[in-house]
Amino acid sequence: MSIIVLGTVALDSVKTPFGRRKELLGGSAAHFSMAARFFTGVNLIAIVGNDFPQKHIAFLRSKGLNLSSLIVDKGKTFRWEGEYRGDLNSALTLNTQLGVLSVFKPHISEEQRKIENIFLANVDPDIQEHLLAKMHSPKLVGLDSMNYWINTKRKELIKLLKHIDIYVANDQEARTLSGETNLIKAARCLCSLGPRMVLIKKGEHGVLFYNKKFIFSLPAYPVEKVIDPTGAGDTFAGGFMGYLTCARKVNSLTIKKALAYGTVAASFNVEDFGLYRTSKLTRGDLERRLTKFKDCFSF
Amino acid sequence: MSIIVLGTVALDSVKTPFGRRKELLGGSAAHFSMAARFFTGVNLIAIVGNDFPQKHIAFLRSKGLNLSSLIVDKGKTFRWEGEYRGDLNSALTLNTQLGVLSVFKPHISEEQRKIENIFLANVDPDIQEHLLAKMHSPKLVGLDSMNYWINTKRKELIKLLKHIDIYVANDQEARTLSGETNLIKAARCLCSLGPRMVLIKKGEHGVLFYNKKFIFSLPAYPVEKVIDPTGAGDTFAGGFMGYLTCARKVNSLTIKKALAYGTVAASFNVEDFGLYRTSKLTRGDLERRLTKFKDCFSF
Repeated sequence: MSIIVLGTVALDSVKTPFGRRKELLGGSAAHFSMAARFFTGVNLIAIVGNDFPQKHIAFLRSKGLNLSSLIVDKGKTFRWEGEYRGDLNSALTLNTQLGVLSVFKPHISEEQRKIENIFLANVDPDIQEHLLAKMHSPKLVGLDSMNYWINTKRKELIKLLKHIDIYVANDQEARTLSGETNLIKAARCLCSLGPRMVLIKKGEHGVLFYNKKFIFSLPAYPVEKVIDPTGAGDTFAGGFMGYLTCARKVNSLTIKKALAYGTVAASFNVEDFGLYRTSKLTRGDLERRLTKFKDCFSF
Repeated sequence: MSIIVLGTVALDSVKTPFGRRKELLGGSAAHFSMAARFFTGVNLIAIVGNDFPQKHIAFLRSKGLNLSSLIVDKGKTFRWEGEYRGDLNSALTLNTQLGVLSVFKPHISEEQRKIENIFLANVDPDIQEHLLAKMHSPKLVGLDSMNYWINTKRKELIKLLKHIDIYVANDQEARTLSGETNLIKAARCLCSLGPRMVLIKKGEHGVLFYNKKFIFSLPAYPVEKVIDPTGAGDTFAGGFMGYLTCARKVNSLTIKKALAYGTVAASFNVEDFGLYRTSKLTRGDLERRLTKFKDCFSF
């Protein structure tokens, strides 16, 4: 089993109370992959510019990712610059340079078109739709978006949601798109737009999972030293979708395990800048923290 | 085994997006008792004015509470008026009339002074200290406070904390008293002030429990229709302290169960105004929801 992840590979510059880093390897697809790779083969669908450091390509390849559909185009790599203050729960975007992302048209191999598990990480809904249309037999499709697209491409996003199995949103996005304040109501409303499952990420407050049969709520794994939360949501999605892909079936038990793996993977992500911590992660690290996490609830 | 709860018995007027209610029976000790009564005998230590409706006394007695130290004094009962908007996560206090609370000096029977489990719910730290000094052999002492006392009686509160086993605070209070943003750091700092355990209530986001040996994080039980969150924190404390009193020992297992009972009790409290829902609660209701809550984490 393998998974397709469409998203960004970016150069992130970030400032948090713990320091500042420039042009770190980042992006939704990169963060997703760092967690998903423990469970399944990952096919990364993204674009970078010809200024993208070769060492980053080598690094991604060394992590076992299939980069055959990573486009290196003439132009600049997508860059994001942000800052976190106070409780580090939300980023202040200081600068965004789309670069080659503005002309991104994903193309994938015939072999990749047969892959059944797909995650459409946060990019323009038109690009997400473009990729999804290429897939031969999508079976489990997850989608993440952001307030920018909810506000500027609402119609396209809502149309796309009809073909999505799992909509992954943070609490603000869920509220914006649904118009509901209560997150359970928001999740139900979002389900009525198409997805049979809705996963609401609440940052340091954990996640809420909703489908018509059950609702699960999990806290975040308690992390004392949050250094940089950039990519935590994508890392969560990577652990979640990766595990479901590997489990080959979606039921209440596999969903709970997937939520827990996602939570634990995200908890590592925030412990250092960029991909520093998750790139060094081992399956053993994941399993040990999962056991500690489970222990919180065994009574 | 029985427990002492010192706190307020009040007449609450509340407005939420779901309606408005006037002069409901409320107060920290009343909400606490509604949950604690399922686990242990509850001795309610509070004061009301001679305007306090007799039916409320009869109601509290009908719930099995020991009211022998509920003072009925000349004057007005403590009244609180508040409003919740939006996500109902924090109250806007519109009016507070202390009434007889301003002259409250708890007195308890010789028999009650022997009780070993004590919860000092939110009142003036001087009153909390006054009661605690009367106790013969406190074994497990919990304390709740509020930002008002943290700001106006910080010295008294910090002195009192040296004699407390479990400090119960909401996230704002924990941050204010500790000066730390990260809640784990805040909890550690608060532990250094005396309490061997710190319990941080995060409203709809659940609770964080901290002691030197372990940290537990539990989500709130997902409630779709939050009608009135007044007293949810006190109800939580009632379930938590009540269960620990009944369990007769404090270890990681009993703490986790106590946290879960508190969480479940609080989830009922928010489903209706004032004590409406918790007053009708049965032990069976609690156990059924506890089972559903546990199921979220069994994977």
